[in-house]
Amino acid sequence: MPDLLLQPIRIVLINTSHPGNIGAAARAMKTMGLTRLYLVDPQDFPSLEATARASGADDILQNAVICHSLPEALQDCTLVAGTTARERAIAAPFAEPREVAGQLLTEAQQGGEAALVFGRECSGLSNAEIDCCQLLAHIPTDADYSSLNLGAAVQVLSYELRLAALTAQAAEEGDMDTPDSTSPHPLDRRANFQELDSFYTHLEAVLTRLEFLDLSNPRLIMRRLRCLYDRAAPSVRELNILRGSLSATQKHLPAKTAKSTKEQ
Amino acid sequence: MPDLLLQPIRIVLINTSHPGNIGAAARAMKTMGLTRLYLVDPQDFPSLEATARASGADDILQNAVICHSLPEALQDCTLVAGTTARERAIAAPFAEPREVAGQLLTEAQQGGEAALVFGRECSGLSNAEIDCCQLLAHIPTDADYSSLNLGAAVQVLSYELRLAALTAQAAEEGDMDTPDSTSPHPLDRRANFQELDSFYTHLEAVLTRLEFLDLSNPRLIMRRLRCLYDRAAPSVRELNILRGSLSATQKHLPAKTAKSTKEQ
Repeated sequence: MPDLLLQPIRIVLINTSHPGNIGAAARAMKTMGLTRLYLVDPQDFPSLEATARASGADDILQNAVICHSLPEALQDCTLVAGTTARERAIAAPFAEPREVAGQLLTEAQQGGEAALVFGRECSGLSNAEIDCCQLLAHIPTDADYSSLNLGAAVQVLSYELRLAALTAQAAEEGDMDTPDSTSPHPLDRRANFQELDSFYTHLEAVLTRLEFLDLSNPRLIMRRLRCLYDRAAPSVRELNILRGSLSATQKHLPAKTAKSTKEQ
Repeated sequence: MPDLLLQPIRIVLINTSHPGNIGAAARAMKTMGLTRLYLVDPQDFPSLEATARASGADDILQNAVICHSLPEALQDCTLVAGTTARERAIAAPFAEPREVAGQLLTEAQQGGEAALVFGRECSGLSNAEIDCCQLLAHIPTDADYSSLNLGAAVQVLSYELRLAALTAQAAEEGDMDTPDSTSPHPLDRRANFQELDSFYTHLEAVLTRLEFLDLSNPRLIMRRLRCLYDRAAPSVRELNILRGSLSATQKHLPAKTAKSTKEQ
């Protein structure tokens, strides 16, 4: 069942201003068999307009989870993808919607929890929000008119997720007689959002202590490093090694002097 | 230019009841580089609601061609595809949206005129209208909820048409035999074997100095780290950052004591 395959995938809408778009998103999701909607700080919800535009998908609105921050909405997620319709200067790993949908579905099939995040109607995702995403789906809009409606963007990605699920289902049906007996070691599972986030916090603290981060633009190097590690999709075991090396560094550094050695 | 490739393809909406859907369709088209809208007997058009929902795509509404019958809207067309979100008993050649988009684009590239036809919000295409279509795109909606909004359906198919155009464009450019003019920044190229190897040597030296590598099996952790970084396939720029952080670590470590602090 494609719907069952799609079950671990949640749609997250950030700070939506028009309730009609929330309704349209719910309807778009339901037509494609997606059910789990997370709303981060919606500006007007619940709302009659959202229910009207949902047109029969109001069960998705009723079950929507309201959150106060993106990390709260990403709780337990092992793979987070953002979406954008604009070209961006940021060095995030861009991919086509089709490829991102495939990756989210694979994650779900392997027992993970996946999230697909949509930004505000006007300004999309902030850089901090993009930092929470391991990959970014770029919907290839026209260069002169990239004003994709939020509900329409959710429709396109939900459609791609459904296609991915239908493809996976067809493949599973083909594979039916090979039982999968090799369940992976728990440490070999892919690290989830919280685990990666703690690692990045730890890494940033150590690099700051090493005076390695450029103080005029401390985020740039961190963003590049996030990009690199997100791409590698570390397992829990690998993350433990990385964090162990950070702790070893901290242990070996001399006690902090009260004053920086740098003059001026 | 994908827009140029899409130029011979028209979108036809039949007997639309809600003007908002006409506006949403225009916006969906324009985000994907489609421009030619034909309206067969729209129930309420022009309309302020259509213009509002078009949100900047009102040029498409202004240039829309109003027709009184489907055959009139299909004038000069050499290939006509219909769309449906429901399973149908009719013996029309069903295909996936992706395949239909590819066929329409091929027709356009070969000098033909192609049309993609959308039926009424409630009842879709009549049998007589389906008879006008040489092929039928079936959007694979959920069996229990196939209530795809008209604007959303236009968005999905317009997106597939744009993907088909981008693919065709890439193929054309590949045929041109022109050297790739958009060469990436030298620092963004993938690090080569020697560069990676120097990084691993550097990393191992620092981790040894930090007494982090298990002395009974020093290669195991290094092997795991190699595995992680190889998977990420770092660019030269990323490798520079990693090596920079290793050098910063070395710089901050206290001078090596002649003797290990460990007893025994």
